[in-house]
Amino acid sequence: MKPVNIGILGLGTVGGGTAAVLQDNAAEISRRLGRDIAITAVCAREEARAKAICPTAAFERDPFALVRRDDVDVVVELFGGTDTAKDAVIEAISHGKHIVTANKKLLAEYGNEIFPLAEEKNVMVQFEASVAGGIPIIKALREGLAANRIRSIAGIINGTSNFILSEMREKGSAFADVLKEAQALGYAEADPTFDIEGHDAGHKITIMSALAFGTPMNFASCYLEGISKLDSRDIKYAEELGYRIKLLGITRKTGKGIELRVHPTLIPERRLLANVNGVMNAVRVNADMVGETLYYGAGAGALPTASAVVADIIDIARLIGAETENRVPHLAVQPDEVQAQTILPMDEVVSSYYLRVQAEDKPGTLGKIAGLLADNQVSIEALIQKGVIDKTTAEIVILTHSTVEKNIKAAIAAIEALDCVEVPITMIRMESLHD
Amino acid sequence: MKPVNIGILGLGTVGGGTAAVLQDNAAEISRRLGRDIAITAVCAREEARAKAICPTAAFERDPFALVRRDDVDVVVELFGGTDTAKDAVIEAISHGKHIVTANKKLLAEYGNEIFPLAEEKNVMVQFEASVAGGIPIIKALREGLAANRIRSIAGIINGTSNFILSEMREKGSAFADVLKEAQALGYAEADPTFDIEGHDAGHKITIMSALAFGTPMNFASCYLEGISKLDSRDIKYAEELGYRIKLLGITRKTGKGIELRVHPTLIPERRLLANVNGVMNAVRVNADMVGETLYYGAGAGALPTASAVVADIIDIARLIGAETENRVPHLAVQPDEVQAQTILPMDEVVSSYYLRVQAEDKPGTLGKIAGLLADNQVSIEALIQKGVIDKTTAEIVILTHSTVEKNIKAAIAAIEALDCVEVPITMIRMESLHD
Repeated sequence: MKPVNIGILGLGTVGGGTAAVLQDNAAEISRRLGRDIAITAVCAREEARAKAICPTAAFERDPFALVRRDDVDVVVELFGGTDTAKDAVIEAISHGKHIVTANKKLLAEYGNEIFPLAEEKNVMVQFEASVAGGIPIIKALREGLAANRIRSIAGIINGTSNFILSEMREKGSAFADVLKEAQALGYAEADPTFDIEGHDAGHKITIMSALAFGTPMNFASCYLEGISKLDSRDIKYAEELGYRIKLLGITRKTGKGIELRVHPTLIPERRLLANVNGVMNAVRVNADMVGETLYYGAGAGALPTASAVVADIIDIARLIGAETENRVPHLAVQPDEVQAQTILPMDEVVSSYYLRVQAEDKPGTLGKIAGLLADNQVSIEALIQKGVIDKTTAEIVILTHSTVEKNIKAAIAAIEALDCVEVPITMIRMESLHD
Repeated sequence: MKPVNIGILGLGTVGGGTAAVLQDNAAEISRRLGRDIAITAVCAREEARAKAICPTAAFERDPFALVRRDDVDVVVELFGGTDTAKDAVIEAISHGKHIVTANKKLLAEYGNEIFPLAEEKNVMVQFEASVAGGIPIIKALREGLAANRIRSIAGIINGTSNFILSEMREKGSAFADVLKEAQALGYAEADPTFDIEGHDAGHKITIMSALAFGTPMNFASCYLEGISKLDSRDIKYAEELGYRIKLLGITRKTGKGIELRVHPTLIPERRLLANVNGVMNAVRVNADMVGETLYYGAGAGALPTASAVVADIIDIARLIGAETENRVPHLAVQPDEVQAQTILPMDEVVSSYYLRVQAEDKPGTLGKIAGLLADNQVSIEALIQKGVIDKTTAEIVILTHSTVEKNIKAAIAAIEALDCVEVPITMIRMESLHD
């Protein structure tokens, strides 16, 4: 068979990795695919770099020129971001090109434009690399688990945050110190907001939620809470109680709507997710027939991400020219079955909670706090006085049973109104990962 | 689109589960696939049971009649075993039927007949359920990781054995006692040989090895060692040293050939595989571009296995009628690229080792043992006297550095020849899971 011709937009970390994988493993890929993959054109900032990486490819300074080339069957979008990337992808689809992208932001924020256009133009948009890097989780959700009704997904899907939390736990260090270390190691950007405030994880859980439940992208409704306010004391107390704190992306189908949220979460230390450390990612899927499955691997990095990009190119190459009307649908369900569903406001989410309260160390304080929790229908699983901060202030950790979030918020507001309590109270959600 | 018509051979645990998944999740499956899946015929021992489970399907007592029916597009072989199953699958392929099977024994022992015939007849043979139940590991190996050269696979792929080892560790019980418990719980068969002696895991690692390295099935060359001779003391000592003992299926590509082996293995307790407990399965894959990935889930059971069976039916249904010449190849690489490769004899495998020696508790014994190890080029990582068995006998645990297996065997033979040492010495292989 003739080679499949690809054009690459962007030769940064992932673009360079993709070129490297295609070159280094060319023989193995052809052995599997039954045809070669040729990079026929590249678009990058520096022509010299492009020529060094892809010497035989045509260089295009203009991405819109690349996506219109007749010798490009598949456009591999690795610019990132949503400015040029979005316009170039739309232009490429309009010209009948298939798309491979690693761009979670593009899909989570503009997927509702991109996928319908792709279906109209009968092209495939593949995006394995957009979630959890090299882990084939998109394929698992769309194909491997296709016989199931998916119930919930919980994932460690931001390596930067997981590295910081792992270091804070192991070394007892403060957030700010570990962040500096992560920046020095190249695990965190100079401006780390996107990673540590949950935006990146929010894009990824938005994509997985759409695939799990057959909805449009709901990024605007995704609750985002990062790790920058976490105190290493909470990590320590959680550990003493048998928990680890992880930044989780969570989506779950409930009778009232779909949960879609990113936040630090206490999980029992025996769970596999609790033992995923450093920059590694893992996604736990609960589905009605198969039960719990988990997928673990590198969530970022040039070569792991390129592994997913090239797997997508291979999938497309197998189907180019095939007269099938029955490809794997972009959002797992047939396009006419994609249905908007209610995203549950956080106030309506049911969870259990970890609270840390600093209060005057005098008789009656615990009783008042417990009473206000009860008044708001919050029942206590454990209440532990962790010791004395100074001569007059004690630190109290409370684990609650499941309750609806508006109740815990009302209870916290009432407790914070007590004269004997310092403001603010620390609240971290908990997940048993048993459902 | 018209429904895809399937005929099911066997309505036991997995067959019943498959019918249940197809019925209970019919709407969700159609929403994904874009067409219905109809069970048009079933073959089972009891017609009454067949009618109860699949009331609208034709009942065939003769499997060979079922596989020839015009209203069957896909034959789902869930008989198990290699007698009727093999003949029926070959007959079905000869009649141009696509195959879905959960039968690891059939593929590991007769895949070298079945796959070439399927290629000649241009039919698909899908077998996700044959390895690790509901975990989509076949799809990961053949598709998700298609851009990689796979280096090694290590898996907990027999739930019965993992349940027994987990219980032995948690309760300190003896193998025979836990086996009885597993039988009472339905986790072990009345004749448990197939599971506990490594045959089942051997079939599964044989299949994964073929996919990883593009070889024919090499089950006859797979080294099999089960867990029935494990002493709970070794589990305890391993734990004291920071290890867990798991029955692993291992395959690895080395410069001298492919390792293919099943045996109890000490692995560091921090590895995710060490924390896979009870009947759960997990497969760790190391590949050149993506690095380490791991896949976890239920390895058996009616519904998890059926989840994989139905995913395979869905995959086939998407491609039936498609004019593609470029399906995912059965053994991951194109048929003409499947190449026999040397399977390394165990004597040539390089590993580190755990030894437990009972010897007379007198001066000079340790020195003699250490000397014989050194004489055979085995270097010692740790040597611990674990205490005294009786007044005159001590128990010594030795961890070695990596060495070729023939050396450790020669060292063991030499040590066993000492008058002061009791026979036999316990030897368990170790894997760092770092490569």
